Amino acid sequence: MHAPQSDLAHVTAELLARLRERHPRVHCITNNVAQNFTANALLAAGAVPSMTLAAEEIGAFVASADALLVNLGTFDAERRDATAISIEVATEEGVPWVLDPVFIDRSPPRAEYARTLVAQKPRVIRLNRAEFAALAGAEPDAAELIRYALDTLAIVALTGEVDLVADGARHVALENGHPLMSRVTAMGCAASALTAAFLTVESDPLTATAAALTVFGVAGEIAGARASGPGSFAVALLDALYELDADTLIEKARVS
Amino acid sequence: MHAPQSDLAHVTAELLARLRERHPRVHCITNNVAQNFTANALLAAGAVPSMTLAAEEIGAFVASADALLVNLGTFDAERRDATAISIEVATEEGVPWVLDPVFIDRSPPRAEYARTLVAQKPRVIRLNRAEFAALAGAEPDAAELIRYALDTLAIVALTGEVDLVADGARHVALENGHPLMSRVTAMGCAASALTAAFLTVESDPLTATAAALTVFGVAGEIAGARASGPGSFAVALLDALYELDADTLIEKARVS
Amino acid sequence: MHAPQSDLAHVTAELLARLRERHPRVHCITNNVAQNFTANALLAAGAVPSMTLAAEEIGAFVASADALLVNLGTFDAERRDATAISIEVATEEGVPWVLDPVFIDRSPPRAEYARTLVAQKPRVIRLNRAEFAALAGAEPDAAELIRYALDTLAIVALTGEVDLVADGARHVALENGHPLMSRVTAMGCAASALTAAFLTVESDPLTATAAALTVFGVAGEIAGARASGPGSFAVALLDALYELDADTLIEKARVS
Repeated sequence: MHAPQSDLAHVTAELLARLRERHPRVHCITNNVAQNFTANALLAAGAVPSMTLAAEEIGAFVASADALLVNLGTFDAERRDATAISIEVATEEGVPWVLDPVFIDRSPPRAEYARTLVAQKPRVIRLNRAEFAALAGAEPDAAELIRYALDTLAIVALTGEVDLVADGARHVALENGHPLMSRVTAMGCAASALTAAFLTVESDPLTATAAALTVFGVAGEIAGARASGPGSFAVALLDALYELDADTLIEKARVS
Repeated sequence: MHAPQSDLAHVTAELLARLRERHPRVHCITNNVAQNFTANALLAAGAVPSMTLAAEEIGAFVASADALLVNLGTFDAERRDATAISIEVATEEGVPWVLDPVFIDRSPPRAEYARTLVAQKPRVIRLNRAEFAALAGAEPDAAELIRYALDTLAIVALTGEVDLVADGARHVALENGHPLMSRVTAMGCAASALTAAFLTVESDPLTATAAALTVFGVAGEIAGARASGPGSFAVALLDALYELDADTLIEKARVS
Repeated sequence: MHAPQSDLAHVTAELLARLRERHPRVHCITNNVAQNFTANALLAAGAVPSMTLAAEEIGAFVASADALLVNLGTFDAERRDATAISIEVATEEGVPWVLDPVFIDRSPPRAEYARTLVAQKPRVIRLNRAEFAALAGAEPDAAELIRYALDTLAIVALTGEVDLVADGARHVALENGHPLMSRVTAMGCAASALTAAFLTVESDPLTATAAALTVFGVAGEIAGARASGPGSFAVALLDALYELDADTLIEKARVS
């Protein structure tokens, strides 16, 4: 399904309804810091997370999953083995996967590794400005995002004050969100996991990614209005993901 | 202490009081996703958790613990080594242990491994319907639970909308709980850890298990009444475990 | 900057303001149970956490960090390798580090390992009474703390109902805090991480440590007044760390 951008808010509401109905399985290779919040964000939105890393069984989990997240937040041998097996299985089985190259700007070997993963065709790459600069060796602006998306055949989703989501031809800007998102760990990781979940209910990856980030951003705004700091913000964000209804989503979505 | 089922609510209140007085140590081999919530649930109820997995020292932790939890939520070599040492020490020292065979329905090698652990005599096996079917190769109903409990000499605790707890001769049905429990990760893991804690204050494992699950279920109901979604539900559940009093417990417990 | 103790509350307020302005990077080697809460406590206070343990890249993270935390809550081979590399890099680069010898009273090999780390000159050692007794082989009182600080050239910070912070000549007593702190996991770990963060904005480590523990204790008191149990307490503590202002801090700090 291809959505003209003007309808994206309505499409997002439909996709969220579909997600809640289908309960897709999302297998997550992610860092220890983020595992609990990521699992809870997926559950709140209606998906079913799994998180094992063991080489003996991760292939079985990925093969029976509907989407895969590969987050580099902990770069150890176990996770690299798990990643190699998972991407191979995902490729064979047609399971779409999202790459989240956390903190590659702080670690040259991690950046190098991320580039080898990009070559294995993630459906979406979600990252922040510093991570994009480290990965693509280019300025984090819309033109470079489109160029990188064209080179890699992935959707590139840059999150920040305004989120930019690009494929090789066009981009959308998403303006939802809240400043407290930068004061709670694992927010980007959870947004990437939610993107993986939306890939299971929408075949156009640009639409799926924009929808996931809009849902996450609107939930963040609702949480920000209720919270008195980052602790209550994280709690309220899970509540908002769970209870978000179509009218609120359509009213609040700011897509251009 | 053997409790006739009709008195189970009163016995549960006594056991909770004893737990809060004695602060038993519960060593947990559990998955990364669940560690934080499990530790906080044990602390809220009055127990003292420890969670190391290192082969060099886990024996010392288990030997000085009052109960042990073996949760298969992450099936890696480190946890399998930790499990082998821990069960050996627990068996020698008479430390009761609970098996939680998470997600064995998704992973044949994990199911196979779970069966080898069952042969090492856990006091209690806590699982959901799909996990029971994968472990026992049988329907998850009361008759099959009793049969499996008789075969394994373990208490079998099946959690779901209604919890069923069986030994080789009888079963009890526990009806407390809240639908949001299925929308927060680590709820089952925490229930298993609490079961381990209750084994330290009650020698009849059926009574201990039913008491632990009743406390957890009643706390879940209280939390559900206060929560506006899964985020605030998890927070309120810890609060409810901490503040639960005997009168509320006796009033709300639904055991048959 | 050397602060006479009578001014410690005012100095603490200044240091917190500086922390929020500078956003120092704190690399944390810590246990899985504590990672999420520790990261969120650092973010709430204004610092930037990182948590990787991979031997291939931890050196780069520590070299570009402003402070390091070494927490022994999980004593496995990966963390010991990570620790060896990190302390070497921290020593070369002049990055101050804090040692948190969690649970060494339960594990003789962990206590032995902690002593080898003390010999490598942590700026601060933060622990509880049982851990101090296991580490120093002495009573956890002010005189022994001062003696141990003199021996090791570290600041020794003993947390409990009253916190005692000593260097080789003097000590301060900090009376802020709340009983619910002992009913939530990772509170001590987060206090140690915050201590590492304060070392980046104050060159006198006794002052930095006392300031960090005062901020944490005052935030705990504010949280305790709002909470209805350990679940809401942990949430409120993060909120309080985030919003704590100088007037409240100066009004509530109890230092002697």
